[in-house]
Amino acid sequence: MAEPAEKPPAVARRRPRRAGGPAPAAKTPAPAGQDWSSWPTYNDATLGFRDFWYPVQWARRIGSKPMPITLLGEKIVLIRDGDTVRALHDRCPHRGVPLSLGRREFEGSISCAYHGWTFDLKDGRLGAVLTDGPESPICGKISVRTYPVRERLGLVWVYIGDGDPPPVERDIPAELTENAFVMGGRTDVRKGNWRFAAENGFDEGHAKYLHNTALWRLFKVMPAWNMTRVIESGSWLIRVQDEVHWEADYPGYGTWSNKRWWKRMPLPDHPGKSADVNPVIKKMNIPGFVSIRLPGLLRVAYPHFIHYEWYVPVDADHVRYVQIMVRFEDGPKAAVFKAKYLSWIRWLFHGQFTGQDAWMVDVMDAPPEKLYRPDLSLTAWRRHIEKSDLKVQHARGRLER
Amino acid sequence: MAEPAEKPPAVARRRPRRAGGPAPAAKTPAPAGQDWSSWPTYNDATLGFRDFWYPVQWARRIGSKPMPITLLGEKIVLIRDGDTVRALHDRCPHRGVPLSLGRREFEGSISCAYHGWTFDLKDGRLGAVLTDGPESPICGKISVRTYPVRERLGLVWVYIGDGDPPPVERDIPAELTENAFVMGGRTDVRKGNWRFAAENGFDEGHAKYLHNTALWRLFKVMPAWNMTRVIESGSWLIRVQDEVHWEADYPGYGTWSNKRWWKRMPLPDHPGKSADVNPVIKKMNIPGFVSIRLPGLLRVAYPHFIHYEWYVPVDADHVRYVQIMVRFEDGPKAAVFKAKYLSWIRWLFHGQFTGQDAWMVDVMDAPPEKLYRPDLSLTAWRRHIEKSDLKVQHARGRLER
Amino acid sequence: MAEPAEKPPAVARRRPRRAGGPAPAAKTPAPAGQDWSSWPTYNDATLGFRDFWYPVQWARRIGSKPMPITLLGEKIVLIRDGDTVRALHDRCPHRGVPLSLGRREFEGSISCAYHGWTFDLKDGRLGAVLTDGPESPICGKISVRTYPVRERLGLVWVYIGDGDPPPVERDIPAELTENAFVMGGRTDVRKGNWRFAAENGFDEGHAKYLHNTALWRLFKVMPAWNMTRVIESGSWLIRVQDEVHWEADYPGYGTWSNKRWWKRMPLPDHPGKSADVNPVIKKMNIPGFVSIRLPGLLRVAYPHFIHYEWYVPVDADHVRYVQIMVRFEDGPKAAVFKAKYLSWIRWLFHGQFTGQDAWMVDVMDAPPEKLYRPDLSLTAWRRHIEKSDLKVQHARGRLER
Repeated sequence: MAEPAEKPPAVARRRPRRAGGPAPAAKTPAPAGQDWSSWPTYNDATLGFRDFWYPVQWARRIGSKPMPITLLGEKIVLIRDGDTVRALHDRCPHRGVPLSLGRREFEGSISCAYHGWTFDLKDGRLGAVLTDGPESPICGKISVRTYPVRERLGLVWVYIGDGDPPPVERDIPAELTENAFVMGGRTDVRKGNWRFAAENGFDEGHAKYLHNTALWRLFKVMPAWNMTRVIESGSWLIRVQDEVHWEADYPGYGTWSNKRWWKRMPLPDHPGKSADVNPVIKKMNIPGFVSIRLPGLLRVAYPHFIHYEWYVPVDADHVRYVQIMVRFEDGPKAAVFKAKYLSWIRWLFHGQFTGQDAWMVDVMDAPPEKLYRPDLSLTAWRRHIEKSDLKVQHARGRLER
Repeated sequence: MAEPAEKPPAVARRRPRRAGGPAPAAKTPAPAGQDWSSWPTYNDATLGFRDFWYPVQWARRIGSKPMPITLLGEKIVLIRDGDTVRALHDRCPHRGVPLSLGRREFEGSISCAYHGWTFDLKDGRLGAVLTDGPESPICGKISVRTYPVRERLGLVWVYIGDGDPPPVERDIPAELTENAFVMGGRTDVRKGNWRFAAENGFDEGHAKYLHNTALWRLFKVMPAWNMTRVIESGSWLIRVQDEVHWEADYPGYGTWSNKRWWKRMPLPDHPGKSADVNPVIKKMNIPGFVSIRLPGLLRVAYPHFIHYEWYVPVDADHVRYVQIMVRFEDGPKAAVFKAKYLSWIRWLFHGQFTGQDAWMVDVMDAPPEKLYRPDLSLTAWRRHIEKSDLKVQHARGRLER
Repeated sequence: MAEPAEKPPAVARRRPRRAGGPAPAAKTPAPAGQDWSSWPTYNDATLGFRDFWYPVQWARRIGSKPMPITLLGEKIVLIRDGDTVRALHDRCPHRGVPLSLGRREFEGSISCAYHGWTFDLKDGRLGAVLTDGPESPICGKISVRTYPVRERLGLVWVYIGDGDPPPVERDIPAELTENAFVMGGRTDVRKGNWRFAAENGFDEGHAKYLHNTALWRLFKVMPAWNMTRVIESGSWLIRVQDEVHWEADYPGYGTWSNKRWWKRMPLPDHPGKSADVNPVIKKMNIPGFVSIRLPGLLRVAYPHFIHYEWYVPVDADHVRYVQIMVRFEDGPKAAVFKAKYLSWIRWLFHGQFTGQDAWMVDVMDAPPEKLYRPDLSLTAWRRHIEKSDLKVQHARGRLER
């Protein structure tokens, strides 16, 4: 991980104010974002961005039986070919039958279930046409599109883009390639567009309220409200808390509190500052708990473990959540973490807690929208996208498929 | 109720002819109505009319738990706030999450489940933003739309319209505000557009045939066919029967009869003329059994009770039936009626009988249509709408919601 | 059946080549067919062709209870009227209620469930209007469309076309009108457009591969690949096999074989050439196993029986398969065949085997397409349609229904 030199430049900054003092004359960012037209690239990115590696499935689930997936609106079939996982466009060019319905007649190839057109898994080349004899003139003249594939972190990564792909490590957080760790994880396809999922993840405000009913919150406290900046650090945007409030009085309504008598508060400024902190996380020295980066990866750092969450576009109305929880340990501590993950973190955090997020992502319906102060995390993310020179994925026309 | 002075002017009139005489050279009204373009307001009124009070739910069912409904295509949340029922647009302006998913943190308000935006139930004003502190600058600068609400007849009434609403009594039949009565009722959302439901209700012809298989018809006879006029009386259109026929011979086919040997026939001209009649109904002196008025309320008068049926537009393909059966009595007679309602009227009439109507409203598919003589009730209703200076409800655009 | 004089002219011909010799410099027909624009009539024929008789249901299933069907996109109600089956447009012209929901009040007519409009089954004329009296002025002035109907082969045939229909025998294979036979059959509505079903039937290539997993293939062998011509003979297109290969080596892949050790191979050139052949089939002298004719009838001839399969357009996304298996015998041999049909042919062939076809027809998604040599059967069929002066069926507009 690229450590921030010192104080990184603010991307979206809100002047801290004295506690209890008068509210600053801050203009809410709402009107500008009313209809997303201020963010034309983002507005257009219903299917996500090309030229990135995306994690799509657990590597151990891909065997010699073809598995169909949809990624950024493209139909893809994943197959294990010896030690290697291959990805091909899931459509026989002959009559449009999905190759994922096909059979494995010969090693290194798949044969379409309909007429036995046999494609090499490596390059998608039509190598044999079983129902037209060995001298079929179409042989070698047709190919199906293939996709670069890698296996990292126990996941299969597929590259959607043009030209030679960059190393997959470019799209994996550096701390996960440079340190030993143990992890647990979960993937599901959930309803809603990927942008709502990403915004929900980096959203400053909702966790304090929506998740109050989650069991996970018995163990992890959150403030009632706070003053926040978003800074840019390497490829990450990071939410930094300048003020933290655990409860507040709302005149005419009452007191609303997020204090928990059985937990210690307040939290330190950032996970690395905690008294008892994992050495790797300490060294990372992230100046806030929550970070996001392109093409849609959230990182939530705790003193002893880090949660990562990828929002992988499936189609306009579905998003694949790939969640992992990482602990930088080996030996007995790693085994204990693994047991904890399987016995409750998986259900409480990767299940109920982020399931509440998925619920909101499903029912959310914007634009129109009216943004408020904590949404500077959203506008920082949208502005970051606008200035990042990204290539938007578009649905392919009928004849190009 | 405004009593007709004497013979009210005919809105749609058909010359009575001598029984058994030759058929008049009447032109069927069919061609004109072929495609509804003759009734442009009606044709446009897929979602109903603004500036009316609509009954939407039993008042006893609305508690402190938010209840979402759809009315004239608008999403609305109903909540009881102390003694008062409130209606708000069911959409948080922040990111479009339905307020009906929210929580009741403080009395007199509802907090959006997502970020705790807290709206006053009375006026929809954003009064507190729990995740942005007491001095959130957006506070008080945003509101959600509210709707006027009243409770009458045990029902919640919501006003869809602009400006100050008229008294809800304007849209309730006068006999129900001026007399004591006992009632039973039933509401359901059924398939089909509200106009088909209203036309089906006022339709002269179908009850004689469609409902022949309903058990209710064991108790209530109907003619085989008749000659009808539609008159206007106050805010009502009323079907008046000039001739009543209990059976007929169709040459080449056979006899078709609606006589029932266990019932007395013919019926008197109108419910008030019956020998044994309730005094209130007698005084109402309605010159026919079936009446309709805007924005879609049917009244079917019997000598001892009256059935009312509201066709409340939900969306283009659904209509809310609000049915009540009223007896103008108190004391023991009222208790007997209530028992009769619950033991069989509710099932036979408000269930099976009007369920046959709902079946037709669902399968009906017009225009095109070919109208026949008894459809003068439909064309009278459509003409009444065209001349009534009504404001059609249109679906709101995405950014206006 | 019109016997081919001698060598019939080739419709789509591929020069046979010496076995084992170099592949001919054949151009694959693919590019031309990329998007079906080369076949404008075919491209347009989503709902099939008018001016043909179509088999739609088993005659024994049509009783006095109305049965609704959809044929070439038209809603039709079938009713038995005494000995005769009648077909009417399944829509009352009054308000669009399906007549198939109606009642049989009088012999020879059906009464719409809604208002008792009573239509003569013979000619669709509105003969009585039960809720408007015997002198209803609309009587006799309105009709619903009727369709010519015949019963042949135990099936009900409906004519979709304009003007007087030709004899139904024009659209039934001559061998089925000139000989005694016994048959068994099956009809289902399946997913997919009728053109995919017809192409799948006449498709040279797929049976050799797709159906390898069907139990039927334990009894009936098929080549691994072959060289084929399509000839025209009377109203039929016939696939003729010039070369037959039972297995082949694919360099770099392996051997792929359709040999079965328990079956004798190769097959004779055509069913009539078999040593042990039914006399009627021998006399038919069809020069290939598989034939197709307009508007979508497949014939697969074996030495002892013939399978016929009609692809009857339902709507754009559904097709009715009418399958019969015919044996030209009577007496005990006929009884044995009937028992065999009911005990296993019905399940193995008309069920599992053609169910695999239905699966492909459902998942197929073309154009775009890339055709290969065996697809000359498809292009011959499409060319045959282009030159046949056919009248395409189009969906009727709202007001014409």
